[in-house]
Amino acid sequence: MTPSLITLTTDFGAGSPYVAAMKGVLLGLNPKLQLIDLSHRLPPQDLRATAFFLRITLPYYPLDALHVIVVDPGVGTERSLLYVELGGRRLLVPDNGCWTWLPELGQVTPVVRRLEASRYWRRQVSKTFHGRDILAPVAAHLSLGLDPALLGPQADTWVRLPWPEPECQADSIRGEVLSIDDFGNLITNIPEASLRSLTPPLRITAGGLEIPHCGSTYGNVPVGELIALVSSSGFLEIAVNQGSAAKRLRANPGMPVVVTGEGIQPAESGPGSAAPRN
Amino acid sequence: MTPSLITLTTDFGAGSPYVAAMKGVLLGLNPKLQLIDLSHRLPPQDLRATAFFLRITLPYYPLDALHVIVVDPGVGTERSLLYVELGGRRLLVPDNGCWTWLPELGQVTPVVRRLEASRYWRRQVSKTFHGRDILAPVAAHLSLGLDPALLGPQADTWVRLPWPEPECQADSIRGEVLSIDDFGNLITNIPEASLRSLTPPLRITAGGLEIPHCGSTYGNVPVGELIALVSSSGFLEIAVNQGSAAKRLRANPGMPVVVTGEGIQPAESGPGSAAPRN
Amino acid sequence: MTPSLITLTTDFGAGSPYVAAMKGVLLGLNPKLQLIDLSHRLPPQDLRATAFFLRITLPYYPLDALHVIVVDPGVGTERSLLYVELGGRRLLVPDNGCWTWLPELGQVTPVVRRLEASRYWRRQVSKTFHGRDILAPVAAHLSLGLDPALLGPQADTWVRLPWPEPECQADSIRGEVLSIDDFGNLITNIPEASLRSLTPPLRITAGGLEIPHCGSTYGNVPVGELIALVSSSGFLEIAVNQGSAAKRLRANPGMPVVVTGEGIQPAESGPGSAAPRN
Repeated sequence: MTPSLITLTTDFGAGSPYVAAMKGVLLGLNPKLQLIDLSHRLPPQDLRATAFFLRITLPYYPLDALHVIVVDPGVGTERSLLYVELGGRRLLVPDNGCWTWLPELGQVTPVVRRLEASRYWRRQVSKTFHGRDILAPVAAHLSLGLDPALLGPQADTWVRLPWPEPECQADSIRGEVLSIDDFGNLITNIPEASLRSLTPPLRITAGGLEIPHCGSTYGNVPVGELIALVSSSGFLEIAVNQGSAAKRLRANPGMPVVVTGEGIQPAESGPGSAAPRN
Repeated sequence: MTPSLITLTTDFGAGSPYVAAMKGVLLGLNPKLQLIDLSHRLPPQDLRATAFFLRITLPYYPLDALHVIVVDPGVGTERSLLYVELGGRRLLVPDNGCWTWLPELGQVTPVVRRLEASRYWRRQVSKTFHGRDILAPVAAHLSLGLDPALLGPQADTWVRLPWPEPECQADSIRGEVLSIDDFGNLITNIPEASLRSLTPPLRITAGGLEIPHCGSTYGNVPVGELIALVSSSGFLEIAVNQGSAAKRLRANPGMPVVVTGEGIQPAESGPGSAAPRN
Repeated sequence: MTPSLITLTTDFGAGSPYVAAMKGVLLGLNPKLQLIDLSHRLPPQDLRATAFFLRITLPYYPLDALHVIVVDPGVGTERSLLYVELGGRRLLVPDNGCWTWLPELGQVTPVVRRLEASRYWRRQVSKTFHGRDILAPVAAHLSLGLDPALLGPQADTWVRLPWPEPECQADSIRGEVLSIDDFGNLITNIPEASLRSLTPPLRITAGGLEIPHCGSTYGNVPVGELIALVSSSGFLEIAVNQGSAAKRLRANPGMPVVVTGEGIQPAESGPGSAAPRN
């Protein structure tokens, strides 16, 4: 029941020799591995993008998979490398918080170890490529049944990446664009549940522009029109049907997105009323 | 004899979290799958590009492979999702015609089913991500031996994508650029066989420019020169040796390409004559 | 003990239908293959980039892997295709020198065969796609145990790509940028060992600009600053901490990089002295 499935998530770039070298080290130690690329195109050194990526992908994986993450701006410095067990999931990650947005983290206590036992590493360790020289061989050894307790001492503290909580007021939520997918859809940090706390109809503005339509999927509006909907990851998303909301709104991660309910309207139009906004 | 090889073709982008999530669902249901990425870089929502891609790649695959295609501009609307058996090939596709350029389609009758049996789907189905919530679990169940008849009712009609037939006249063919590969080679919709119906020498113009050379491979002309040849997919191709014809001709899909034989020359130079063109 | 692991390295582009077609041919002949993508994003027709990529990745692979390389500007011309055994490694490559920077080549004599036995090829061979029609089926047959001696006659000569040796003088080395990774790090052709022959402190200039810091890893300098270090492949590398040295220095492959030791300083500051440079 040792993991034979290893996934790789890096910011090395598609087709990078660094990914190829890591796969060689992994397969050299355990030729029976099943290697799955999650992504090699995370924005370089972007811990928030990595954390969000892991949050919306890892929950779909079987528990016996082992996830190797190499987005590591601190490579070769004093930062640790970690082995993490969280609700049955197993990860190897730099201690930079990139795993701390996983949904399980609020519910269960992780077991975290610092990788210190260098006998499971490659003999020569480059100061700039711990993915190849430490994480890959450690992952291969784990896949062959190595007891994680041998990797290094348990850790009680680790770097946490603060989740960018949206500001919720009586009848408005102020969030931001968290991630932009390859279609140009804008995924925000505003969860579906929080939208239900507002009094409809909702008014959504992003980058100063009001989004004219709300719906459940892209095809609810004509091709080329902006729409707000709930993304497949459960957050408010702003999209253009068969187009790019990122281009339309010149959006970047961090761009403010504001949702207001009827409650904030002037007194003459009471909460919940259907009076038109002007 | 159930398929254990599943291929994935999407427009999600290389390194997309959506691909990663689909792989997780697939491997969670059948850890012994062999997953092969065909492409995740199809132009967004481009059904013709997808149809051509499938036409020139799927015929090379063994018949017991199961092909999952997620180029799906209509996700979450009334469009169906289909299970298709065609000459032994098996596909899961949105009902948007993207599979209807497969070469077998003219020769054998497909068996098509609409996916309706939701017990093979994920419990919660996002309106914007049927790839993860319907197609991936259905594919995994099929790979474990599920009888396709249980997926839903047989369908007699489905969306067909019209193949852009070139206009053939007595001694000329008017076609168009169908696809541009990463080298910048222009693949047209003019099949090799139709070229043989023309009286050589052939004259080929693309984007208003006459292609100066015909040959059988790129190296037949000096580096940097334009050449017309038969592509590895059997269609007329316009290329620059070690360069990009797309850049040279500022080409886009749909750009007209015209081939004329000697027959269209003025009367004084009869058909088949070697009289020089001026 | 026949290889079941096949790696693919091409310049076809991520998501190319040509990669997909090759995988289909391979799996059609041997469904039990393990296919690993090394890269499909090598710069088109760039033999030096390919040779360097193979040099810094293949040494990490187990010896029983079979490496298929398709960077092949001469496809369909008189150039040969080769089967190469080098220190236990096995490759299928066009005869264009792209494999001749492998570190083993100086130490052991390769066994090289020209692929001539067409009974192991696809029946119809496109003049522009030998990867699909020759290399893929030959690789699959080898993975099933075919004796390489049956592929074609042994060859005594083959194309060699000259390694761009840096110019070493008494106390200076003049090299060049060999490769730029996706982070924008510049990897030079100056090996770590040659740096030790110079009298520190070293002065490093690239593109006419002096690199202000030397160190062992990116984090040794503040974010955004230039640093020179030894790359994970053992060569002098110029980087920007969490930035792109390629953008900062507008660098391209071939850009000169010069390292000078104290020995070249004026006489009043003797070798090894700590006198400041001005």
